Amino acid sequence: MDESTALMQRALDAARLGPEADPNPRVGCVVTDAAGAVVGVGHHRGAGSAHAEVDALAQAGDRARGGTAHVTLEPCDHTGRTGPCTRTLLDAGIARVVFAVADPDPDAAGGGATLAAAGVAVERGPLAEQAEELNASWLHARRTGRPWVVAKTASTLDGRVAAADGSSRWITGEAAREDVHALRARCGAVVVGTGTALTDDPQLTVRGDDGTAAARQPLRVVVGRRPLPATARLRDGAAETLALATHDPAEVLAALHAGGVHRVLLEGGPTLTAAFLRAGMVDELVTYLAPALLGAGPSVTADLGVTTITDAVRLRPTDVTVIGADVRITTRPLARS
Amino acid sequence: MDESTALMQRALDAARLGPEADPNPRVGCVVTDAAGAVVGVGHHRGAGSAHAEVDALAQAGDRARGGTAHVTLEPCDHTGRTGPCTRTLLDAGIARVVFAVADPDPDAAGGGATLAAAGVAVERGPLAEQAEELNASWLHARRTGRPWVVAKTASTLDGRVAAADGSSRWITGEAAREDVHALRARCGAVVVGTGTALTDDPQLTVRGDDGTAAARQPLRVVVGRRPLPATARLRDGAAETLALATHDPAEVLAALHAGGVHRVLLEGGPTLTAAFLRAGMVDELVTYLAPALLGAGPSVTADLGVTTITDAVRLRPTDVTVIGADVRITTRPLARS
Repeated sequence: MDESTALMQRALDAARLGPEADPNPRVGCVVTDAAGAVVGVGHHRGAGSAHAEVDALAQAGDRARGGTAHVTLEPCDHTGRTGPCTRTLLDAGIARVVFAVADPDPDAAGGGATLAAAGVAVERGPLAEQAEELNASWLHARRTGRPWVVAKTASTLDGRVAAADGSSRWITGEAAREDVHALRARCGAVVVGTGTALTDDPQLTVRGDDGTAAARQPLRVVVGRRPLPATARLRDGAAETLALATHDPAEVLAALHAGGVHRVLLEGGPTLTAAFLRAGMVDELVTYLAPALLGAGPSVTADLGVTTITDAVRLRPTDVTVIGADVRITTRPLARS
Repeated sequence: MDESTALMQRALDAARLGPEADPNPRVGCVVTDAAGAVVGVGHHRGAGSAHAEVDALAQAGDRARGGTAHVTLEPCDHTGRTGPCTRTLLDAGIARVVFAVADPDPDAAGGGATLAAAGVAVERGPLAEQAEELNASWLHARRTGRPWVVAKTASTLDGRVAAADGSSRWITGEAAREDVHALRARCGAVVVGTGTALTDDPQLTVRGDDGTAAARQPLRVVVGRRPLPATARLRDGAAETLALATHDPAEVLAALHAGGVHRVLLEGGPTLTAAFLRAGMVDELVTYLAPALLGAGPSVTADLGVTTITDAVRLRPTDVTVIGADVRITTRPLARS
């Protein structure tokens, strides 16, 4: 591994310390002095806190003068809750900036050009693929204008999410249910339909293995027009809850996108899952399958408008993992032909 | 590994050369002379051919006198298509017989006692577990009076075996379909309902990777009262076909058991699968899941009489394997509480 790749790897490792579900991307920065010695390693800790470059430069102080900054994402060029990083880098006297992924955000992009115009040597650096993967959903949201949507289902091997009488506790085992908490922790919002909210009365919070609530909770979103009773667990104040009186996936995602959410977990039920699939607005499916059969009851997804086998929604598997007695299959929809 | 274990291992290896789907069990035999040198290794090649003991003793000839026979299954004591092995062992002058698993068949059992009464040293030998597994379905049939039943399903992730219009070619990929041929090759009979026979017109034969038919084909069984057209592939003569005008799983299995079938592959449809599940006559489920969604269409199993989640048919997973883009999940039903 060459010098620059090693420094970018270190910046990526730092970036991973940031919160994935934050509205802001995860960014890491390593500052070396003019002689090439590391004098600052910083990362972004979430909206409202210092950007990675500022964090690293604060450690470096005067030693940054004439040095190099390796940043996982192109330095921003706009003034948000914090000043532009381009300004901070120039003020610190940084002579060279290497970044892995360009910022696609129209508001923040152009940082590289601004720095180059000011006489800084600007390079597109190594490990672009890892840097891209690190902020996959954030980059997706910037490029497409809507969040990355993960649809989660939990069913029996015959695809039933509940028995004929509506009962569904518990189809999957404890390990799978804990895994769902990890899935939620990676998302800015968790969405259910009012049907599921009324039938299952879910709490939709993130709890650790010891059962205590995580410090950071995803926004809980209930989609539909039926009101929830005051006793509903979604109204328990354990996390922020947003009610959206629409079933239109585009409207739901637009509202969440405007709120800075770039990764959404769709937790059903079948009607909502079908609506998002039909709209082409599911980017990933996480299917938990329990070793059980029901033979009747609601299925994973309601009608998709598919009547013949050649029109099936085809998926590409990306992961198969055994979790306790259950199996988790992760897939991504293929483009419809 | 001690001497006796090593000899039994060699007998097991020989036994595995036999045909699993044969009405007879797979048996291996190693004969050593009085000094302990191996003078014969035999196995059974299927109904009508020599038993393993006879095969090994033919190689050993006079050298067997005063020697030992290691056999994976207790030597038979009855005259079937061939004479009793106990007689052959005594005639050859074998002084000691070690066998791994007792023969539970009331017609054939007692071989050990007969040999002991004639002055042969008889021992229950090592590797009983492997010897048991080797003939799991044959032993199951001897003990329970009915064949071991493997129910195979192939569906989308939402549990649909066909689209709303009945079309189902192909839900799973080529690798999974080839895997089904290997599954069939291990079974004495393959069973479908007339509904599946009429809708899918399956051939239900065993073909190798090169597409040519295997020399040994399972019995094809069609269950139900509707007649098949003369043009049905099940009437193509590529393998024997049996039509059973009943839907009662017990009657179907009794007929197959009487015909020496100890391992049955149930290939659907949903009505037949449900009938066997409801009767408690499924011993293993092999579930192929394709990365696709249909949202409508017939499910893996018809109504199981389950109305609430606590009554679900619970299964124990024994294997999860990725096959091409599909996932194969093997499970066994847990005893109903």
